[in-house]
Amino acid sequence: MKERLARLKAVRKLIKTYRIESQEALLGHLQKEGFMVTQATLSRDLKLLKVGKVSDGHNGYVYTLPGDDERQETERTYIHDFLRGYVSIDWAGNMVVIRTYSGHSDSVALAVDNLALEDVLGTISGRDNTVFVCLREGVTGDDFMRHMKECIPELED
Amino acid sequence: MKERLARLKAVRKLIKTYRIESQEALLGHLQKEGFMVTQATLSRDLKLLKVGKVSDGHNGYVYTLPGDDERQETERTYIHDFLRGYVSIDWAGNMVVIRTYSGHSDSVALAVDNLALEDVLGTISGRDNTVFVCLREGVTGDDFMRHMKECIPELED
Amino acid sequence: MKERLARLKAVRKLIKTYRIESQEALLGHLQKEGFMVTQATLSRDLKLLKVGKVSDGHNGYVYTLPGDDERQETERTYIHDFLRGYVSIDWAGNMVVIRTYSGHSDSVALAVDNLALEDVLGTISGRDNTVFVCLREGVTGDDFMRHMKECIPELED
Amino acid sequence: MKERLARLKAVRKLIKTYRIESQEALLGHLQKEGFMVTQATLSRDLKLLKVGKVSDGHNGYVYTLPGDDERQETERTYIHDFLRGYVSIDWAGNMVVIRTYSGHSDSVALAVDNLALEDVLGTISGRDNTVFVCLREGVTGDDFMRHMKECIPELED
Amino acid sequence: MKERLARLKAVRKLIKTYRIESQEALLGHLQKEGFMVTQATLSRDLKLLKVGKVSDGHNGYVYTLPGDDERQETERTYIHDFLRGYVSIDWAGNMVVIRTYSGHSDSVALAVDNLALEDVLGTISGRDNTVFVCLREGVTGDDFMRHMKECIPELED
Amino acid sequence: MKERLARLKAVRKLIKTYRIESQEALLGHLQKEGFMVTQATLSRDLKLLKVGKVSDGHNGYVYTLPGDDERQETERTYIHDFLRGYVSIDWAGNMVVIRTYSGHSDSVALAVDNLALEDVLGTISGRDNTVFVCLREGVTGDDFMRHMKECIPELED
Repeated sequence: MKERLARLKAVRKLIKTYRIESQEALLGHLQKEGFMVTQATLSRDLKLLKVGKVSDGHNGYVYTLPGDDERQETERTYIHDFLRGYVSIDWAGNMVVIRTYSGHSDSVALAVDNLALEDVLGTISGRDNTVFVCLREGVTGDDFMRHMKECIPELED
Repeated sequence: MKERLARLKAVRKLIKTYRIESQEALLGHLQKEGFMVTQATLSRDLKLLKVGKVSDGHNGYVYTLPGDDERQETERTYIHDFLRGYVSIDWAGNMVVIRTYSGHSDSVALAVDNLALEDVLGTISGRDNTVFVCLREGVTGDDFMRHMKECIPELED
Repeated sequence: MKERLARLKAVRKLIKTYRIESQEALLGHLQKEGFMVTQATLSRDLKLLKVGKVSDGHNGYVYTLPGDDERQETERTYIHDFLRGYVSIDWAGNMVVIRTYSGHSDSVALAVDNLALEDVLGTISGRDNTVFVCLREGVTGDDFMRHMKECIPELED
Repeated sequence: MKERLARLKAVRKLIKTYRIESQEALLGHLQKEGFMVTQATLSRDLKLLKVGKVSDGHNGYVYTLPGDDERQETERTYIHDFLRGYVSIDWAGNMVVIRTYSGHSDSVALAVDNLALEDVLGTISGRDNTVFVCLREGVTGDDFMRHMKECIPELED
Repeated sequence: MKERLARLKAVRKLIKTYRIESQEALLGHLQKEGFMVTQATLSRDLKLLKVGKVSDGHNGYVYTLPGDDERQETERTYIHDFLRGYVSIDWAGNMVVIRTYSGHSDSVALAVDNLALEDVLGTISGRDNTVFVCLREGVTGDDFMRHMKECIPELED
Repeated sequence: MKERLARLKAVRKLIKTYRIESQEALLGHLQKEGFMVTQATLSRDLKLLKVGKVSDGHNGYVYTLPGDDERQETERTYIHDFLRGYVSIDWAGNMVVIRTYSGHSDSVALAVDNLALEDVLGTISGRDNTVFVCLREGVTGDDFMRHMKECIPELED
């Protein structure tokens, strides 16, 4: 999976730098940078990076990254949803368990997925009031809490 | 809800016609066309239309509609998912009930949501093998089946 | 089911009026009022009415109804959750379909369940962005919308 | 869908009558009876009828129907699960709404799916305490309740 | 999170000892005992402790803890649900995986949540037949099984 | 749990070797081999092994194991579903986290459950695009990936 992170960075940089109009063009750029991938793998990378396709104003389409602007706006929304919904946060090993108010496990899981991107492999929300968060190898529960508090100063123990 | 459909059409036309860079600009255009809405309502409209925001190549962003291209590509994917997953289709009144193979109710529901857009108010997928589809007022189960077969010729009774 | 509504009203009145300390006592009161029920049925009634049991300050317990106070407080919360989460509302026959922002279908369904108590038989929230609301016999989609707007003045079409 | 019911009956009779060892053999028998179907459709029929494949004691396999024995045993289990879990039953049009104790909506939905097979198109269980049951065209809520009570005499209004 | 456990104990003791009629009064008591918390945090604590509000017989309300009585009654119910639903129990590290009969994952997860309170950070129930249980730091799978067997003598390996 | 694995092997061997017509007969055979179990435990074992009951051609029933034939056919289906649905695979400790395309988490989880039987304690699929896989004690994420690639050669990092 190491190689994938390098490739994802390359894809992101290529889309920022060039006007890329097709997967074929993107595959060509990647090959020049030494990444050999199939079209299926590239599709998955674009999905993970939330790359979009937008009209170039004429007949074609151009790949784009989600805008910073948009990211900030939704960050405020996620913080709001998290504070509205969570009841308690605990952890053991690399698993964080968040209890929520009834009906808020989905919105809290989605918020954590987006706010703590670097620390988190994924989240699962269960019946209506529990979320499991799986931390990346090497990230501790304390690290996770510290980063969440940097991002949500109102968060109390 | 009648007014909403007219407004959604107007929003779609405005984004196709003009280079719109902010919700304020879009609200202005809508007012000229006689639609008075709050920003909150406009946000909901953009969500329903799956409008995206893309870099204009400089520092700003422009609203865009999902490309036709992209829509065709995913239509093929939805047809494939539907054929892979469904077991039977029945209906009573305006409710269609689809049985699926285990684990395929989500992907079949998502496919119906996208393929039968005009006929369907919404879909719910339950435990792992059942989907409920709520048809629009005036659409019958036979209408729904006819439209699904136009779209998926391989579909048998 | 007609009889049940009458019985539920009787249970509610008995708990308000008397200090009731056990299901046996409650069954006795109900019999005097002409309602013959099993203990299993009474348990279900108490569940539906959200009746609680609280310490009488000594060694025993007394049945209580959820306080009005508490209800008002949570009504404000439900209104907030509904406005945060919903994208659109449509209906056909006695089924209302609400589209929500991702991850908010559970909290919107719970809000509707509590705000529109008189109109609604039940709600189901599906994948992350759709809610089905089943209206009582004789209630129309327009009735539902009118009542929701009385309760949530900010609600727009 | 009319034709499908006739075909399902034919498949059931063929498997009871003959020692059928492959889908090809079954397709052959169906053709003789005037049913022309593809292999994909036949697979769906076998899924709906819960047909199994069992060793013939030598090297091959034979199709089998779920035994009556087995069905009775599980019927007792479903009745038990239904009585353990349900809180109330109401309906409007062709939709029955069952409220359950927390965490019991899945087991109640599964019980209804199996006990009221003839009346029901499908069930969906939502958050932890609500089930929607979609009745077949022409079946009323009163029919459904009468059949459920025949099957579960302990069931009260 | 250490501090939280001490505070939760204090809240529980205060509600047992005093007639507390409002969150303000409870905050005052907590301050005297050296706990400084915001109202939002106190709300979360009351949620976790399942504290209720009941009529004082006049116009006001008093906070109450769930009664021991009630807890015993439901313990029997949870044991019954667990024995009805589980198929197998395994673990690795601090994660216990319980397989259940179809449709019983929710009720088994709820039972574990309530029966093994001291050992468990939370449970998630998935498709219809699997539950993940996250154990507290320092609790092993063997500890969990021993405690479950103390509580459910019928439980076999 | 050690004893259980030995017993499951014994049950499988007995059903292959003898014509077993009832749970009582199977319990008798198990006792002769030194396994003392209750009927309830035996039911759970049969559930885990997916043992079926088939007509013996006369009035009785015989226990059978799922055929190899059938297993191969479904293996191909699971591989197809996995490749259709997965976006990325990561892990930390004994938890593997798979991201999927929208609506495909259930079918990917079911595929992993069946393809990586030896490595996996269980899977949970969450909102529409995440799966948690809990590995057996002693199995690493690298082991899991190696086995998945043996089984699905098309799988890329």
